[in-house]
Amino acid sequence: MSKRTLHLAIVLVIAGSAAAQSPAQVVTAEDGKKAIKEIGRAAVEQVLQTQQEAWNRHDLDAFMAGYWNSPQLTFFSGGKENHGWQEALDHYRATYSGSGHEMGKLDFSDLRIEMLGPDAAFVRGAFHLTMSDGKTPHGIFTLVFRRFPDGWKIVHDHTSAAE
Amino acid sequence: MSKRTLHLAIVLVIAGSAAAQSPAQVVTAEDGKKAIKEIGRAAVEQVLQTQQEAWNRHDLDAFMAGYWNSPQLTFFSGGKENHGWQEALDHYRATYSGSGHEMGKLDFSDLRIEMLGPDAAFVRGAFHLTMSDGKTPHGIFTLVFRRFPDGWKIVHDHTSAAE
Repeated sequence: MSKRTLHLAIVLVIAGSAAAQSPAQVVTAEDGKKAIKEIGRAAVEQVLQTQQEAWNRHDLDAFMAGYWNSPQLTFFSGGKENHGWQEALDHYRATYSGSGHEMGKLDFSDLRIEMLGPDAAFVRGAFHLTMSDGKTPHGIFTLVFRRFPDGWKIVHDHTSAAE
Repeated sequence: MSKRTLHLAIVLVIAGSAAAQSPAQVVTAEDGKKAIKEIGRAAVEQVLQTQQEAWNRHDLDAFMAGYWNSPQLTFFSGGKENHGWQEALDHYRATYSGSGHEMGKLDFSDLRIEMLGPDAAFVRGAFHLTMSDGKTPHGIFTLVFRRFPDGWKIVHDHTSAAE
């Protein structure tokens, strides 16, 4: 046994002994999957946090960055279906910005992020707007997220305003 | 070269030549993933077809078999959130069956099944009920499906009636 081989053998024995004493440190495929899901969940949560902050500083472009920039993006609301990232931005601009309109203060709550695999998730949650006239439009939503090369994006948004 | 080895060599040459002539027949991991998604999509479509048929023969139990039998099943509708498979069945029974109630004829349409991985999918679609008094309650829905050991089940249903 050369000095180098002996050295390697000692290292392996120590490593083996450490692993035996702390089996929790052994990383299994299951641990890997769990870690990927945790990373996904944190990324989705960050998108929603960024959207809420963007809305509240009246930055519609930053708000819309959370949505998939595609004509295939879909919005369901009040029994109506709408399509497209650009159409959504135009709608938000017409409804919430410009003279005579206001965006109000947006709060997301009761967010439940559920991972559906390494590349997909859906979110159940509630929204609450506080307007300067005291009105508080609010309701619940379902969001479907997919992971794209440039990050997690909402591909479908179904929102129901409370009656 | 033995007779057996020669035979094998000939078979391999023929097989290789066939593969070269028909590259589409080579099954890649990508093909496998695509096949798994196609099987999932067909299973999800079958659940919806079964639900529509069950509703139309007034079989609420068979209709409810498409939903995850769990207190964690969620229904979003008209800004309100409801939980639980049993609660949903009770609600359907109270709303649609018994004297003075009717289930009407249910049609799903515009179904778009999108696979989100081997074990998850979401569905965008529309529903249309035809009642005996001529009324036609209708709207759109988002369903999230997961694959369980006993098949594909809806874990979340967000429905918006048209106003």
